[in-house]
Amino acid sequence: MKNKQPNILVVNDDGITAPGIKALMHAMKDLGRVVVVAPDSPQSGMGHAITIGKPLRFDKIELYDGIETYKCSGTPVDCVKLAVNSVFKGQKPDLCVSGINHGLNNSINVLYSGTMSAAVEGAIESIPSIGFSLDDYTMQADFEPCIKFVKEIASQVLEHGLPIGTVLNVNFPQGNNIKGIKVCRQANAKWAEEFDERLDPHGRPYYWLTGVFQNNDNGEDTDVWALDHNYASVVPVQFDMTAHHAIPVLNSWKFNV
Amino acid sequence: MKNKQPNILVVNDDGITAPGIKALMHAMKDLGRVVVVAPDSPQSGMGHAITIGKPLRFDKIELYDGIETYKCSGTPVDCVKLAVNSVFKGQKPDLCVSGINHGLNNSINVLYSGTMSAAVEGAIESIPSIGFSLDDYTMQADFEPCIKFVKEIASQVLEHGLPIGTVLNVNFPQGNNIKGIKVCRQANAKWAEEFDERLDPHGRPYYWLTGVFQNNDNGEDTDVWALDHNYASVVPVQFDMTAHHAIPVLNSWKFNV
Repeated sequence: MKNKQPNILVVNDDGITAPGIKALMHAMKDLGRVVVVAPDSPQSGMGHAITIGKPLRFDKIELYDGIETYKCSGTPVDCVKLAVNSVFKGQKPDLCVSGINHGLNNSINVLYSGTMSAAVEGAIESIPSIGFSLDDYTMQADFEPCIKFVKEIASQVLEHGLPIGTVLNVNFPQGNNIKGIKVCRQANAKWAEEFDERLDPHGRPYYWLTGVFQNNDNGEDTDVWALDHNYASVVPVQFDMTAHHAIPVLNSWKFNV
Repeated sequence: MKNKQPNILVVNDDGITAPGIKALMHAMKDLGRVVVVAPDSPQSGMGHAITIGKPLRFDKIELYDGIETYKCSGTPVDCVKLAVNSVFKGQKPDLCVSGINHGLNNSINVLYSGTMSAAVEGAIESIPSIGFSLDDYTMQADFEPCIKFVKEIASQVLEHGLPIGTVLNVNFPQGNNIKGIKVCRQANAKWAEEFDERLDPHGRPYYWLTGVFQNNDNGEDTDVWALDHNYASVVPVQFDMTAHHAIPVLNSWKFNV
């Protein structure tokens, strides 16, 4: 088993031609056999959405030399479901990596992020899974400084596996001087939204979602702190969303029905 | 303060004309001043998606007698963001209720559900929030047997608030003999997907996502167990997705970078 080349599923949310998925795919080629399954268009902010009201297109394409590649009309989570069901056909991949996202997915962004939701879906399928994101939202983002960390983290996950029901959320600061890796918790932060109201050529209003990231967490063990201090942040994420500590509180209530 | 009528935001994912949101709105009218903000089309399975690549439409409409009502072209989470930002304008509602969903959102469905994601977004905004769902996927679903439970749970949340960072996921079994309320944890379950492949009139394949729900959890303290035994299930859900128990495991790894 140790000598068998691992099968690695590469997904993302920025779409199949994004520089970030190319960088991730090339990094993974050194660790195993790579299969790419990604959306045919950008799917940022799609969270854990799945496509149920309409059908999906799903096609094998020639895009990257020597790499089995598929594009899908659906969401990042759809891509993982299709990969498991229709490409790997029950013989699950040894690793699922998502990204590298053009933009951070730390803190509360784990909920909105298609990149992380794809990795979470991999974990639901019992595949060791990791989402990678870089603090650069442009298509010109330089992923090179991240690559040695991406390879090292993926290698460790291939070697150790991950605790049951968990998945890694890895975020990188911009630039060449990443100091190292910090294992963190999700910072308590949120977006303060603002809607930019404009008028269309017919005089009807429309709204762009914008916002400012607000960190409400002074902890030095958070992903926000690590990134602010130029470390790569690694947060173990779980998909059991039960607030176990709140169960006794609710059980103390008297329901009059 | 005690005498002030609470402001209640009602949202959903099945769309503004769904019978489920009408049932919820009518139930909430007995508890406070109701404002409805909902998608203009069905948004089932949208999870925590937000609309960032295109603008939103957002319009006040006359639909329900005496109820302030808005429709939005975006996702359930967009609706909550717009309600907080553009309707309540910083003076947050006292309660956010989502649903009643046509179909269950227990167990792993909390991640895929637009209904629950809207409630989670309410909680992120520090609004006491509840998602309600009924085990009936049809538009003819009978919500009447749920209503007394919906009112009681909402009243308790208005009275007690909720532990910080939590939101309630409430699911109802079908039919007239709901035995009571059980506070539960999220069952360890998943969907075993299958894709139904068909050919379009031009001979090109397309795929419908289908699947079978698989419960892998024998616990008698889960939402799946409660619903199977005809109880309404109440799961406290949190949006800190950190797998705190996994942090020491990851810290024991030696990263060679």
